[in-house]
Amino acid sequence: MTDVDHYYHVDGEIVPASEATVSVDDRGFRYGDAAFETMRAYGGTVFAWERHFERLESTCDALSLAHGLTKADLRERINATLAANDLADAYVRLSITRGIQPGKLTPQPEVDPTVVVYAKPLPRGGLEGDSVWEEPATVRSIETRRVPDEAIPAGAKTHNYLNGILARAELRESGSGNENEDGVVADEALMCDLEGAVAEGATSNLFFVRDGALHTPTTDGDVLPGITREIVLELAAENGIPTQEGRYDLAGVLEADEAFLTNRTWELRPIAALDGRTIGGGPVTERLSRLYDERVERVCYSSS
Amino acid sequence: MTDVDHYYHVDGEIVPASEATVSVDDRGFRYGDAAFETMRAYGGTVFAWERHFERLESTCDALSLAHGLTKADLRERINATLAANDLADAYVRLSITRGIQPGKLTPQPEVDPTVVVYAKPLPRGGLEGDSVWEEPATVRSIETRRVPDEAIPAGAKTHNYLNGILARAELRESGSGNENEDGVVADEALMCDLEGAVAEGATSNLFFVRDGALHTPTTDGDVLPGITREIVLELAAENGIPTQEGRYDLAGVLEADEAFLTNRTWELRPIAALDGRTIGGGPVTERLSRLYDERVERVCYSSS
Repeated sequence: MTDVDHYYHVDGEIVPASEATVSVDDRGFRYGDAAFETMRAYGGTVFAWERHFERLESTCDALSLAHGLTKADLRERINATLAANDLADAYVRLSITRGIQPGKLTPQPEVDPTVVVYAKPLPRGGLEGDSVWEEPATVRSIETRRVPDEAIPAGAKTHNYLNGILARAELRESGSGNENEDGVVADEALMCDLEGAVAEGATSNLFFVRDGALHTPTTDGDVLPGITREIVLELAAENGIPTQEGRYDLAGVLEADEAFLTNRTWELRPIAALDGRTIGGGPVTERLSRLYDERVERVCYSSS
Repeated sequence: MTDVDHYYHVDGEIVPASEATVSVDDRGFRYGDAAFETMRAYGGTVFAWERHFERLESTCDALSLAHGLTKADLRERINATLAANDLADAYVRLSITRGIQPGKLTPQPEVDPTVVVYAKPLPRGGLEGDSVWEEPATVRSIETRRVPDEAIPAGAKTHNYLNGILARAELRESGSGNENEDGVVADEALMCDLEGAVAEGATSNLFFVRDGALHTPTTDGDVLPGITREIVLELAAENGIPTQEGRYDLAGVLEADEAFLTNRTWELRPIAALDGRTIGGGPVTERLSRLYDERVERVCYSSS
């Protein structure tokens, strides 16, 4: 994190990691009052940038955060960060905070945002790529409930990420000697909503296959509309895979024939086991993974 | 905020405001992964420091944030900040973040915390003091619901403060030309829990008086256990004022004879009107305010 050859884009400038700071008065620090996106660049191209920008705007709308920055400006900052770090295949995180404002908690309409871009190397994606993960995911359901939409809009991707942190922390408390490299007993914590319906992982969306049909918790519930999730649903529709978005209890997921998680970094990652019950990937998971890789290959690596 | 004569205490050092920064990799910035307390110093003494430290520890326990700092160390940082700013009567905010950690979301047990102390002048308190507020509060109930305890422990005071920000932002959206200095139509936003019971303000606890008895929402619900709230309940008990902690709907509060808000900065602040209905303070509010001022006077100004 503090290597001298690593550069961030902070508040309009490329700076070395050691100088990548924000004021303690920044509302991003004081309150987590900030929107963010995590992206992947494949061969120098940010995959699904349009969708990421749209969701970022949706988050900022939910926060009444009128940052005043154009799509081109934000894209340029990302490109500059990739260039400064000499990266083509990369993980990219873009944050926009409400900056420093007079007064205290009540947000003011005039915003001087703080924009932070971070990039780090990831493997090549697409048909010739390698997965970021080495093994299918082990998953545990935990007690922490997903923050409901009535409290913080479920579609907003913000720096208020304690809900997911508490979920992951539960994986440590239930430790049993089977810890992974993070010192926890599973790769992902699966959260239910307050009514007990399965919602999502701390940093991922859930899919499962039963009776040949793909299922995923509906974003009508307390579920972040993941962009990888959205693309998987499109690929399923385009390729005749029957799909259902709904509300499901944990027992139903445990009986699945296949299951996988999605997020920007993992893409599609099969679930080896949920709560100790073996599930694994399968033909539908493999097909969708290949379709996803093909799309990445087509969009990012063969566009010249 | 950026005046050169203002000093912060950041990561063990007194620094001018312009140099008071944290790394963008600090989990306090990335995730709001931090605990905080807001305090008042009266005549150089931090009021109810023991209670603030205890609640801070309780928050850190809830976050599994083992910061490793002693009470004496934290108190010394606060005292140093007050001294650097030449302040005796002051608002003080102390934050402890989980700092920078390897890996991503999953918190690691070994913590190198970031500690930030901020202080600014406030009027003298106690019997000869002036209120921080100029007028009783206008309050509006809003649609945003308090984050439930099942998602993030209600007793934890953290940098995940978007719930309160969204509550306050609603006061702008319902604007009607009656804006206050913050450009919003009320001083405080009153949140209900998911079942519709009154919970708390964005930065305050609620009290109301009906039939001679003091009422306040129970901390068995989704309510932060405010320290001013706790002291008011003690003062009521010591002085024979009947008290009830429970779950109340908004209609019940609207019919109150008196109502007031409590927080560290405001102390006790009468509610002039809730949702346009005039309530105001009264004999019980005035008596408790005086008892509170007497305690501040005794503890902080006459201790030599």
